Amino acid sequence: MQSPAPHMIHSLTAMMRIIDKAEAHAAARNIKPEVIPNLRLIADMLPFWRQITIACDHAKGACGRLAGVEVPSFADAEMTLAELQDRIAKTIAFVEAIPQSGFDGADARQITVKAGPRELSFAAPAYLYGFAFPNFYFHLTTAYNILRSHGVGIGKGDFLGG
Amino acid sequence: MQSPAPHMIHSLTAMMRIIDKAEAHAAARNIKPEVIPNLRLIADMLPFWRQITIACDHAKGACGRLAGVEVPSFADAEMTLAELQDRIAKTIAFVEAIPQSGFDGADARQITVKAGPRELSFAAPAYLYGFAFPNFYFHLTTAYNILRSHGVGIGKGDFLGG
Repeated sequence: MQSPAPHMIHSLTAMMRIIDKAEAHAAARNIKPEVIPNLRLIADMLPFWRQITIACDHAKGACGRLAGVEVPSFADAEMTLAELQDRIAKTIAFVEAIPQSGFDGADARQITVKAGPRELSFAAPAYLYGFAFPNFYFHLTTAYNILRSHGVGIGKGDFLGG
Repeated sequence: MQSPAPHMIHSLTAMMRIIDKAEAHAAARNIKPEVIPNLRLIADMLPFWRQITIACDHAKGACGRLAGVEVPSFADAEMTLAELQDRIAKTIAFVEAIPQSGFDGADARQITVKAGPRELSFAAPAYLYGFAFPNFYFHLTTAYNILRSHGVGIGKGDFLGG
């Protein structure tokens, strides 16, 4: 299969530019650094920072598993916007370093992932298109929606990236 | 390329089950039929019904364009939840009817789409993975987030589908 990394890198880079705008928004309004990472759409949904780290986890998880490369583990703890930028940059660096050759023959792989208490096993294409991509975009979109609904000046073009 | 239709059908079917839950939620609370379709995350974002019709447009647009099949045009006007279910069902029926053979050789196609005032031209894989899929999931996720943040009892598993 073709490496999914370029598409994920594109969307993650777009999210870094969105976080730039969130940082400028916070600076212009004297919003304390811990506020934006902890914004949520509703009390029982995950905060902004978790949406970002989960999106990163799906990107590195998908690329690493499909290419048979060990997936690095990054500690999950509440993060500032600057730390989230760094997490995204590290994720991009990991997936960017996997050559296309790593994905040659990946279509035939069987992929097993843990999802909460369950273990899910997929053929590689079903894993990528039916699980990793939908999850990746779910969390990036929810991150976008959190900022957008709290007044950060961003639009759909920012999400899609230039 | 492999047809993207099965993945889109899976996610659209999951959204139909989510709308079932929204209908039950409205019925249990005597919420008027026009209320849920018009919910938004914030005043200057599109309402629920538009998130659904745009997601459907990206599904039928992507499958039709990639397979070189004429894309049906469905009228866009405010819709009830029942009408949205029907729109999704019609979209599924269209993309389901395109055989895999329609996508054979699609990788070499050049795809041109209108995005507001601009005309965008992509190689077929870049169109699918860099435009159609991100847009499709963006609007499905935003539809989910609108219901979720307004109290409809749904979770991530509903979004991913069974």
